[in-house]
Amino acid sequence: MSTAFRSCFVLIGFILAYITYLLLGALVFSAIERPVEETLKSDLNSLKAELLNLSCINATALETFLEKVLQANKYGVSVLENATVRTNWDLASSLFFANTMVTTVGYGHTTPLSDVGKAFAIVYALIGVPFTMLVLTACVQRFMHPLTYGPISMCQRRAGLQQRTASVVHFIVLLVLVVLCFFVVPALVFSTIEETWSFLDSFYFCFISLCTIGLGDFVPAEKPGQRLRALYKISVMVYLFVGLMIMFLVLRTFHKLADVHGWTAFFQLPSYEEEDEDKEPIIEQEPDDESPEAEKASIKPLDPSCQVSYNSINR
Amino acid sequence: MSTAFRSCFVLIGFILAYITYLLLGALVFSAIERPVEETLKSDLNSLKAELLNLSCINATALETFLEKVLQANKYGVSVLENATVRTNWDLASSLFFANTMVTTVGYGHTTPLSDVGKAFAIVYALIGVPFTMLVLTACVQRFMHPLTYGPISMCQRRAGLQQRTASVVHFIVLLVLVVLCFFVVPALVFSTIEETWSFLDSFYFCFISLCTIGLGDFVPAEKPGQRLRALYKISVMVYLFVGLMIMFLVLRTFHKLADVHGWTAFFQLPSYEEEDEDKEPIIEQEPDDESPEAEKASIKPLDPSCQVSYNSINR
Repeated sequence: MSTAFRSCFVLIGFILAYITYLLLGALVFSAIERPVEETLKSDLNSLKAELLNLSCINATALETFLEKVLQANKYGVSVLENATVRTNWDLASSLFFANTMVTTVGYGHTTPLSDVGKAFAIVYALIGVPFTMLVLTACVQRFMHPLTYGPISMCQRRAGLQQRTASVVHFIVLLVLVVLCFFVVPALVFSTIEETWSFLDSFYFCFISLCTIGLGDFVPAEKPGQRLRALYKISVMVYLFVGLMIMFLVLRTFHKLADVHGWTAFFQLPSYEEEDEDKEPIIEQEPDDESPEAEKASIKPLDPSCQVSYNSINR
Repeated sequence: MSTAFRSCFVLIGFILAYITYLLLGALVFSAIERPVEETLKSDLNSLKAELLNLSCINATALETFLEKVLQANKYGVSVLENATVRTNWDLASSLFFANTMVTTVGYGHTTPLSDVGKAFAIVYALIGVPFTMLVLTACVQRFMHPLTYGPISMCQRRAGLQQRTASVVHFIVLLVLVVLCFFVVPALVFSTIEETWSFLDSFYFCFISLCTIGLGDFVPAEKPGQRLRALYKISVMVYLFVGLMIMFLVLRTFHKLADVHGWTAFFQLPSYEEEDEDKEPIIEQEPDDESPEAEKASIKPLDPSCQVSYNSINR
């Protein structure tokens, strides 16, 4: 019990440190970028006013203006009337930006404008990316028992399934639940809140985000006049964090499944370092033993080269 | 020798399959998106012509026009005169897009415009992301001997260093070389080729790319009239692939270093599943044994929960 308590305590500590890191990052990004953004905005507005004051608009003037508009847009600064009232670097937006940096999603709908901002982004990600992975890992580790080992063991005890069958049934159920809870339901929610997003757009956003591709063509809470914008942004951050954790958990569960079924050997490339080694069978199954500890013990840790495979696949 | 040959053969097979997958993806993306892009471009040009034909430009007309311009720009379609000649969906650009999808870099400077394109992107990434990780892993596995085990063993033999010291010295040298070859030198090259990029911009691009954040504020070979554009795009793709492989290799080497120094235990969170287990020491060092095989054998594979940590950190 005390170990479980300590585990909880360490996890909460990690999460609090992570939130603090995000908040600190957001404050620094906000402090660095907000003044630069305001200068750029006022420059853009002057240019727009100049263009409108021309008695007759010509192609060259329009082209020069559009070049500036698109350049500013690259940094997330919009020339549109209804977009100029809000900033990309208030606390909620900066938090969201910091979060998409450290999770490597990186939508790029907002990017640092100044050199100081870029340099800070490098340092921030250098620490933040491994830290996020550590926190996500700690969470996955904590949830592997209730979401993977527990249910598999229950399948074996209650339904009398063999370990191999139980792990397949569990993986399929887990996958269906994850697709429903982390793709279909969020997609429905996003397509309701974001007026211009279809269900496909929302599903595509969820998928591109939780794969950490983060193209940034769809970013929530960006439409002008969004109600409860800060709360919405923070909810999306929580969704991204929990979603990424669940992606790791699914991959980790797949790793277990592959071990149990000996699929690991299938993807295993021969390499120099294995040449002279006595190969041990990857799995030593003990089908009579059904407790989760026995199940774990029956899965021999893979050799280092095997670990490489899964290390990388797990991203 | 035959194992080494087979290893090479399998690796080459993997890489060829990967290139084929990228080419196929590029052809499909190009076929789906090019017509949609052309329609959008001609629409934009008509709107621009209409605006220029107005006897007197007014704020509302300009605003409507700018909205359309920015919307198109979100998909990577530019209204600018010198940008309209080239497409985002020729073979080289589509290849580059496919590559940034499957490596999860996802700059988002170009994004699918049509629903079919978005649906295909989901399916393509669903297969492509794990496949890329598999290929990268296969490469890392192949290079771990000449770049990590070999040099560490040589340090031990030639300089008479202990395993712990040798692994630290090797890691520092590797890190310096990687920073030089994959950040500083490419940054110098990019800042020379891309006229508007400073050295910081280029370094920031390399860092944001090789961390797979991919904000997309800096994307090479995008300036109008770029000479040898296709070749340049493909070179950047190769840089991204090799760079990501080296990032994995550095993380894998760090994992080894952490094992040797017992740092793995430091980041290890207590969890339910460990409660009743007999804990084995993470390392059983045999400092007298200096061959790489002995070195490997001395590092006990971590328990499953340990593996989780590194699985995730390795992304």
